[in-house]
Amino acid sequence: MDGPRERALQLLQANQEENLSSLREFLSIPSVSTEPQRAGEVRRAALWLADRLRGLGVPKVEILETGGHPVVFAETPRPAAAAPRILVYGHYDVQPVDPLELWEHDPFDPVVRDEHLVARGSSDMKGQITAVLAAVQAYLGSGGRDLQLKFLFEGEEEIGSPHLPEFLGRHRSLLEAEVCLNPDTGMLGPDLPTITYGLRGLAYFELRLHGPQRDLHSGAFGGAVHNPAQVLCDLVAGMHDRRGRVTLPGFYDRVLPLAPEEREAMARLPMNEAFYRDGAGVSELWGEEGYSPAERVAARPTLEVNGLLSGFTGKGSKTVLPAAAMAKLSARLVPDQDPGEVEEQLRAYLRDRAPSTVRWELERMAAGPPSLSDRDSPHVGALSRAMEAVWGRAPLFRREGGSVPVTAFLLELLGMESLLTGFALPDDNAHSPNERLHLPTWRRGSQAVLHFLYNLAERGGWN
Amino acid sequence: MDGPRERALQLLQANQEENLSSLREFLSIPSVSTEPQRAGEVRRAALWLADRLRGLGVPKVEILETGGHPVVFAETPRPAAAAPRILVYGHYDVQPVDPLELWEHDPFDPVVRDEHLVARGSSDMKGQITAVLAAVQAYLGSGGRDLQLKFLFEGEEEIGSPHLPEFLGRHRSLLEAEVCLNPDTGMLGPDLPTITYGLRGLAYFELRLHGPQRDLHSGAFGGAVHNPAQVLCDLVAGMHDRRGRVTLPGFYDRVLPLAPEEREAMARLPMNEAFYRDGAGVSELWGEEGYSPAERVAARPTLEVNGLLSGFTGKGSKTVLPAAAMAKLSARLVPDQDPGEVEEQLRAYLRDRAPSTVRWELERMAAGPPSLSDRDSPHVGALSRAMEAVWGRAPLFRREGGSVPVTAFLLELLGMESLLTGFALPDDNAHSPNERLHLPTWRRGSQAVLHFLYNLAERGGWN
Repeated sequence: MDGPRERALQLLQANQEENLSSLREFLSIPSVSTEPQRAGEVRRAALWLADRLRGLGVPKVEILETGGHPVVFAETPRPAAAAPRILVYGHYDVQPVDPLELWEHDPFDPVVRDEHLVARGSSDMKGQITAVLAAVQAYLGSGGRDLQLKFLFEGEEEIGSPHLPEFLGRHRSLLEAEVCLNPDTGMLGPDLPTITYGLRGLAYFELRLHGPQRDLHSGAFGGAVHNPAQVLCDLVAGMHDRRGRVTLPGFYDRVLPLAPEEREAMARLPMNEAFYRDGAGVSELWGEEGYSPAERVAARPTLEVNGLLSGFTGKGSKTVLPAAAMAKLSARLVPDQDPGEVEEQLRAYLRDRAPSTVRWELERMAAGPPSLSDRDSPHVGALSRAMEAVWGRAPLFRREGGSVPVTAFLLELLGMESLLTGFALPDDNAHSPNERLHLPTWRRGSQAVLHFLYNLAERGGWN
Repeated sequence: MDGPRERALQLLQANQEENLSSLREFLSIPSVSTEPQRAGEVRRAALWLADRLRGLGVPKVEILETGGHPVVFAETPRPAAAAPRILVYGHYDVQPVDPLELWEHDPFDPVVRDEHLVARGSSDMKGQITAVLAAVQAYLGSGGRDLQLKFLFEGEEEIGSPHLPEFLGRHRSLLEAEVCLNPDTGMLGPDLPTITYGLRGLAYFELRLHGPQRDLHSGAFGGAVHNPAQVLCDLVAGMHDRRGRVTLPGFYDRVLPLAPEEREAMARLPMNEAFYRDGAGVSELWGEEGYSPAERVAARPTLEVNGLLSGFTGKGSKTVLPAAAMAKLSARLVPDQDPGEVEEQLRAYLRDRAPSTVRWELERMAAGPPSLSDRDSPHVGALSRAMEAVWGRAPLFRREGGSVPVTAFLLELLGMESLLTGFALPDDNAHSPNERLHLPTWRRGSQAVLHFLYNLAERGGWN
C-alpha cells in the first residue's frame, strides 16, 4: 500500500503535462519589471500567479500593493500551533530581452529544443516557481496538511527589490515562518544538486573628488593644479597591496578564517581555475595570495572598482584638467564583516590618504551583510535528504560570491533564515539571449521539493 | 611735416568709428564652427571678411575651400624681390554661446558697456582681427607699400583646425612669408603689452585596457579576475612620483633647464601663486618640486589625465566588474622634447608595468612639438619697439603652457616662425558667457600693429 508521499509522487508524474503547459503560459507574459511600458504585463503575471495558486487549492491568495509592482501573497491554513511554517520566495518578473536580435526565437513564445524549454524567465525564475508549485499541488492533492505553506512572490527582483524592505516591515506577522525556501540559486551541474549556505555581503559606495571650480585648460593650468582624476587613481591604486590584499585599515580584522575542512570541501567542488578563466573569458586569473579562485570568490572579501568617470570621455581629444572625478567602489563582504564598519574603514583610509588639494565625498549606495547558514540545521537536513532521494547523491554545499538582497532583508527584518537552492544550471543563459530551462532537471526539482515537504511534515516541527 | 607713419596714425584715429561699426557688423554674424546648422553663418563671416579686405584696398582676396569651413586668403603685391612678407593669421569662427541664460545680452547683438564691447567673438578673435585690419587700412591708406601683406583667416580654429594642415601643405607657395603675425594670444593686463615666445607641445593619447570578455558580475567573479579599472588606476598612479615628477623612462632627458636669467624674468611676471590659485578656483596648488607655479605651467612638462571611463557610471549602484577601462592622457611638452619620443616612453612604461592579466592599447590622438622663439629676432624687435611706442613700456615676454596648433603646423609644414601676441585681456571671458573686448586696449593694439608694420618697412628686409 502506498503512503501519501508515494501517492504525491504519482500525482506529480500524472500532472507533468499540465505543469509544462502552465509554465509555457506563465512564460508568455512579458513581465519585464524595468520597462515602464510593461507595467501592465508585470501585473498580469501577478494575477496569473494568483489564479494558479487558487487552482492548486491554496485557499487564501492576495495581491498586495507596494510602491511599485505588486506582491502575490498566499497561504494554507496552519494545522496546529506547532506545525512548521515554510515561506516560499520567488520573483515573477524577468530581465529585459535585449539584444533581441541574438534570440533564435521570440523570447515570450516558449519553444522546446531537445531537453530545454527556451524563453525569457524560463530559468530565472518562472521555471523555479512552477517547479515548487507542482510539488505543492502534489503535496496538497495527496492530502498533505501537516505544514503551513506561505508564498511571497515579488515583481521587482530584477530591479533590486526597491519596495521589498518596506513591504516586509509592514507585513511582518503575515510572513512569519521558520524558514524561507528560496529556489533562486542553482545547481553546479545536472547531476550535482546544490545547496548554497553562504553569501557575501555588499557595501557599495560612490566616491567623488572635487578639485578646481570648473574644468580647466590643461595648457593654462596643467602642472600647477592637482588633477582630481590623477588623485582618484592614486587613491584607488593604494587600496590594494602587491599581494592583492585590501589595505583599508582593519578590513580583515573580522574576517572568519576558512577552516581546513571547509577548504577541503571547496577544493572538491567542480570550480577549478579553468571554471573561472573560461567563465570570465580571461587568459589568466588574479587575486589575493594564498587562496584558490573559488575561495577568493566565495569566502574572501574584495574591493572592486565598478565604475570610473572623469573629464572628457568622448571621441578624440580635449585638453581638459577635470574639475571632478568619480569612482563607484564596492566591497564584497564575508562573515563577520559589517557594511557599516567597512564604510568607516574606507573613510579612515580617505582621511589618511586623500591630499588636501582636493575635497572628497563618499556616499553609500547599497549595503547588505554577509551570511553563512548552519549546514546542520533540520531544514538543511530535510532538503539534503530530499535531493539525495532524487539524484542518488548528497548535494554539494557551496558559498556564493554574490549577494541575494532578499536573504539579507529577511534575516535583518524578520530574523528568518533562507534555504537557498534551485534547479537552474550554469549554462541556462540567465540574463542573456536564449535563456533556457533543462526540463529533466526541472522535473527532478519538483520531486525534490515534494520530498522536502514530506521530510519536514514527517519530522513534525522544529527542535 | 608729418612722415607717412604719422599720417597713418592720424588716419587710424580718423577711422575709429568706422572700425568699431565694422567690428559690430562682424560680431553680429554667429559663426559658430562646431554647430552644423550654423555652417551658412560661418561662410557668411568668411564672405564678410573678404569684402572688408577688398574695402581696405587689398587687391587680391580669395575664398579657398577646405574639407570644412573655407579659408579667406588675401595678399598685397610684393613691391620688390627682397621686400619683407608678413602672413597675418586669424580665425573668424567663434565658440558656442551656451549656457545662453548666463548672457546679459544677445551674444550676437554687440553692446557697449563702459569701456567694453560685449559679444561672442569680441575678444577671441574678431576684435583681434579687426585691430590688425584697422592698422592695415591705415598703413595702405598712408601709402605704405614696402611690405607684402598676406592674410590667412580660417574658420575652424575652435574645432581644432582639422583641415588646416592639409590646406597649408596644398598652398605652400601662396603662403610663403618670413614670419606669421598671430594675434590670438593676449596681454597680462591693460598696461602690460605681452609677447609670447614659448609654447608647450602636446602628445595626447587614449589608453584602453581590456580584461574579461564582457562585464562580469562582481559577486560571481570579484576577487578572482583582475579588474581593468583597478589596473588602470595602478598604471596612472605610477606615472608620477612623490615629488610630482613624471616617471616615464627618459621623460626629462631632453628637457632644457631653465637658465637663471629666465627664471628671474619669469619671477617678475604678474603670475604669482594667487594668480593660479584664483584662476583655477582651488585653495592650494600642487606640482613638481623645486619650481614655481608659473615655471611649472610654462617651462616644465606635465602628464595629465584628461578623462577616465570604465564600467557603470550612472546613478545608483551596479555590481559590475568592467570588461574595459579607458583613460585620456596627455603630456604637455617643453623644448627639446619630442611627441614621438614621449609616445615611445609611454609605451615602454606600459610594457614594463602593465600586468599580463589585461591587454592594453595605446592610440595617439594628437601631437605637436613645443616651441621657443628667438627673443632677439628682428621681427620680435620690431614688435617690441612698436609696443613700447604705444604703452610707454617694453612688453613682457612670456611662455604659455598651452599649445597653438597653427603655430606648430606653420613651423612643421612651412618652416615659418610665428610672432604670438594679441590684445585680449585675462578677464575678457573668452569661451565663456559675456565675452568682451576692452576697447581702449583694442585701439592701442591697432596702433601697435601699425607701428610694427612701419618698423618692419623701415628696416627694409630681414638679415
